[in-house]
Amino acid sequence: MPSLSPAIAEIRLAVRTALVDLPEGSTVIVALSGGADSLALAAATAFEASKLGLRAASLTVDHGLQDDSAEVASTAAQAAAALGLDPLIVRVQVDGEGGPEAAARDARYRVLRDAAADVRAAAVLLGHTLDDQAETVLLGLARGSGATSLQGMAPSREDDDGLRWVRPLLGVRRETTRAFCAASDLEVWDDPHNVDDRYARVRARERVLPVLEAELGPGIAEALVRTAEQLREDAEAFDEMIHETIEDIVEHAEAGISVSVAALAANPAALRNRIIRLVVDSEFGVSLTRTQTIEVARLVTDWRGQGPIDLPGCAAVRQGGRIVFTASGR
Amino acid sequence: MPSLSPAIAEIRLAVRTALVDLPEGSTVIVALSGGADSLALAAATAFEASKLGLRAASLTVDHGLQDDSAEVASTAAQAAAALGLDPLIVRVQVDGEGGPEAAARDARYRVLRDAAADVRAAAVLLGHTLDDQAETVLLGLARGSGATSLQGMAPSREDDDGLRWVRPLLGVRRETTRAFCAASDLEVWDDPHNVDDRYARVRARERVLPVLEAELGPGIAEALVRTAEQLREDAEAFDEMIHETIEDIVEHAEAGISVSVAALAANPAALRNRIIRLVVDSEFGVSLTRTQTIEVARLVTDWRGQGPIDLPGCAAVRQGGRIVFTASGR
Repeated sequence: MPSLSPAIAEIRLAVRTALVDLPEGSTVIVALSGGADSLALAAATAFEASKLGLRAASLTVDHGLQDDSAEVASTAAQAAAALGLDPLIVRVQVDGEGGPEAAARDARYRVLRDAAADVRAAAVLLGHTLDDQAETVLLGLARGSGATSLQGMAPSREDDDGLRWVRPLLGVRRETTRAFCAASDLEVWDDPHNVDDRYARVRARERVLPVLEAELGPGIAEALVRTAEQLREDAEAFDEMIHETIEDIVEHAEAGISVSVAALAANPAALRNRIIRLVVDSEFGVSLTRTQTIEVARLVTDWRGQGPIDLPGCAAVRQGGRIVFTASGR
Repeated sequence: MPSLSPAIAEIRLAVRTALVDLPEGSTVIVALSGGADSLALAAATAFEASKLGLRAASLTVDHGLQDDSAEVASTAAQAAAALGLDPLIVRVQVDGEGGPEAAARDARYRVLRDAAADVRAAAVLLGHTLDDQAETVLLGLARGSGATSLQGMAPSREDDDGLRWVRPLLGVRRETTRAFCAASDLEVWDDPHNVDDRYARVRARERVLPVLEAELGPGIAEALVRTAEQLREDAEAFDEMIHETIEDIVEHAEAGISVSVAALAANPAALRNRIIRLVVDSEFGVSLTRTQTIEVARLVTDWRGQGPIDLPGCAAVRQGGRIVFTASGR
């Protein structure tokens, strides 16, 4: 018996680990573009799903953004069928809002969610690799919004409808998915968007990570991913702490929302600033910058009788032992 | 009256803000290399200290690593004297342990600490700028040890002897310190080490940050510094939480140290993993990697009767509701 390719073994193990807790008889949907990442994911899922008693389908979204997109989608679906998956193709109309990249991604997630609801799938599997995660962290770093933007993509997340979004390959290098496809004789589609340097993600991949590797590496991609993992843990811990106290310290009023000064003062800055951001975000749908957040926090930490602070969509003022946020007229 | 250069105004304000809380009559020591950063800091400190009723000295360390180091130190001391500071030069012998960069830094801090003790200084002022902080964060990112390595240098820190180490210029761009010196007719020394690309820090500055700016920026340096600020807050919050509980959950024994499984289980991963690292570091002087830390945590989160885990300098085992760490024979 020929020995299994290390790439195939690694990816099958990653998929098995991600799927092992799903109840027998569940359906999973692989998001399949036809690229090496998602093709390797589809193949490994087909193999592991049958052993775990799961049903597996694939869904390929034809964004219609390229001339040959229908053909690419059809080739991917045929590959999925040959692997033993139930293949699905959905054609979507992408409007350009927020740029073609963002619009295509939004359309893709919507289609996946709808398809998962149709077949009562337990999970959607996404082919993001360690390299994708490293790029995401770099892009977050460029935004500079701290732990939130550095924690990258979640390995597994349950949405409000109880659907799990799982990324089994977040610990797997992209080149391993190519080796998987080569060893399995799977024909890979190379998305021209992946080398289009109008996209910041492509520049992060092609121009930034190689420089980081050469000057400060090797092992930069793995270092970024380890950082993301730890920061995700940190964020979850803070979320949990805030969740436990938020209802006790916040009061909803007709004109807005208020938070106890004493409670804010008793918390360390990390929690105080997060509570302020959370309150404003949940009430007014506005993400405060760090500078704005700290200005509000000074109503607690450096109180000298300041007047109201104008913020996007609202204003903050200290009144009777509380920080009161009210919608602004604009 | 000619208007003040914006660079001078910005740096004086940063220094004033950093010094304003020191008691009148205190002495501060500026660490002065003669480079633009520390020269601008020295000049602004001389100006602000007299207004705040503080005494200000400068200390220049002659590492003897370059042929002209005595002359460079003497020029810096003369500049300090002309600014109205009490100038001090200390010649040190640098051994090469850990590389010349690390050895020179260690020697510098030792000399500053001793000098501060001699004159009973309240604070040592260091000239690190926003650019230095961004480089530090990048280097930390390359190590991948999470929030700890990304939080950069502290703007103000009190050591065990009650001496404050203050970095007033962490929010100031390096080019602003050059503009300060140009506007003040101060002659700047350019350290040849600052362009020696054998140092990772020099490569981060000269080759990595410009690429990040060009491909993902602008504003990368500021974004890195905002991230560092927030992660420092996060780290301080976790430190505080751990400090409050650690003595209740740890027991010292003859052969080592142990931690309650129930307490570790009750904490979120962010705290659990930090407690494990802290216990091993404080007892055995060993920094666990993330992989090692998580393997120990599995004795709590994924208990299947595992045997002892070998770690550098110690071993961890679960026994009678506790994780017990004992020194290893090596």
